[in-house]
Amino acid sequence: MKFCSSCASPVQQSIPAGDNRMRWVCTNCKTIHYQNPNMVVGTISTWGDGILLCRRAIEPRYGFWTLPAGFLENDETTEQGAERETREEAGATIGGLKPFAMIDVPHVNQVHLFYRATMLTALLDPGEESLEAKLFRAEDIPWEQIAFRTVFKALKWYLQDQQQDPTFERSTFHYDAIALSSRQPRAS
Amino acid sequence: MKFCSSCASPVQQSIPAGDNRMRWVCTNCKTIHYQNPNMVVGTISTWGDGILLCRRAIEPRYGFWTLPAGFLENDETTEQGAERETREEAGATIGGLKPFAMIDVPHVNQVHLFYRATMLTALLDPGEESLEAKLFRAEDIPWEQIAFRTVFKALKWYLQDQQQDPTFERSTFHYDAIALSSRQPRAS
Repeated sequence: MKFCSSCASPVQQSIPAGDNRMRWVCTNCKTIHYQNPNMVVGTISTWGDGILLCRRAIEPRYGFWTLPAGFLENDETTEQGAERETREEAGATIGGLKPFAMIDVPHVNQVHLFYRATMLTALLDPGEESLEAKLFRAEDIPWEQIAFRTVFKALKWYLQDQQQDPTFERSTFHYDAIALSSRQPRAS
Repeated sequence: MKFCSSCASPVQQSIPAGDNRMRWVCTNCKTIHYQNPNMVVGTISTWGDGILLCRRAIEPRYGFWTLPAGFLENDETTEQGAERETREEAGATIGGLKPFAMIDVPHVNQVHLFYRATMLTALLDPGEESLEAKLFRAEDIPWEQIAFRTVFKALKWYLQDQQQDPTFERSTFHYDAIALSSRQPRAS
């Protein structure tokens, strides 16, 4: 950030009165330009014993498999965002969304939230951001080609819960935070 | 938003290629300036049978009672943010944080996330944003003077769960979305 989006004057970093963090502040109109983490919302959607994954047609991690997910938009709920991303990336129609897992990714200023959901039809129609969308049985999940650590973790939790209780009635909400590791690609 | 924070040229709204939403796009350098919801993180912290509330020293809802909570910052996890807000607003030292409830507030582009937590000492030391910080027994909670609907809802869920199971072992993660109502103040 170099300029004020309100008045186009240069911004500089300083700690505003009553605050304790460096912020971008306009040198002219004094507007404070806060920067905060974004939410990524998605689903673990299933049809019978198949789990829905999409193969990425975009960077980062082009060609790798992921759960349908993307940035939460203004004016929508996390549930609506998760449903929308599943529709846009996989062309899937889903219902019965339940919050399933949240994973903080502070080194990229993101919070990833996954719902579990049920596909209402078997129809898939991958969108521009997916090379393909496909249902995988647990034993066929391409673990070596999963795009992001948050997706890997959410899928593992899902399968563990399912094994313990196929109805998910005893499933509790999962939470973890992921730290930066040089051996792993950055989660997006 | 009027000007590009990268090059100070005017921005205008348009739908970028591969997107389906209006975004602020720079007329000169073509940078897309996305705007997304923010997370508010806080805690339901307890000491014995007391629930920690803070009386707001800032607008909106000056003088009303709230759970300690505030905007998630970059470079921190939701758990760290909830702990920090509880420390900053109430001076409380807490531990054992567990995700408890998430409430979407799409009309203000916010997602409110509450952890439950235990105070490690009885010490309170309200910060600049609080007129006072105080422990309330369930029967003494000032329901008519609660600042925000998300706080009201989270407290009700907490007391219901506690009544059913004081150990919270059967407590599941709560989720809801709040719609705009003209009869109620805007949730912050």
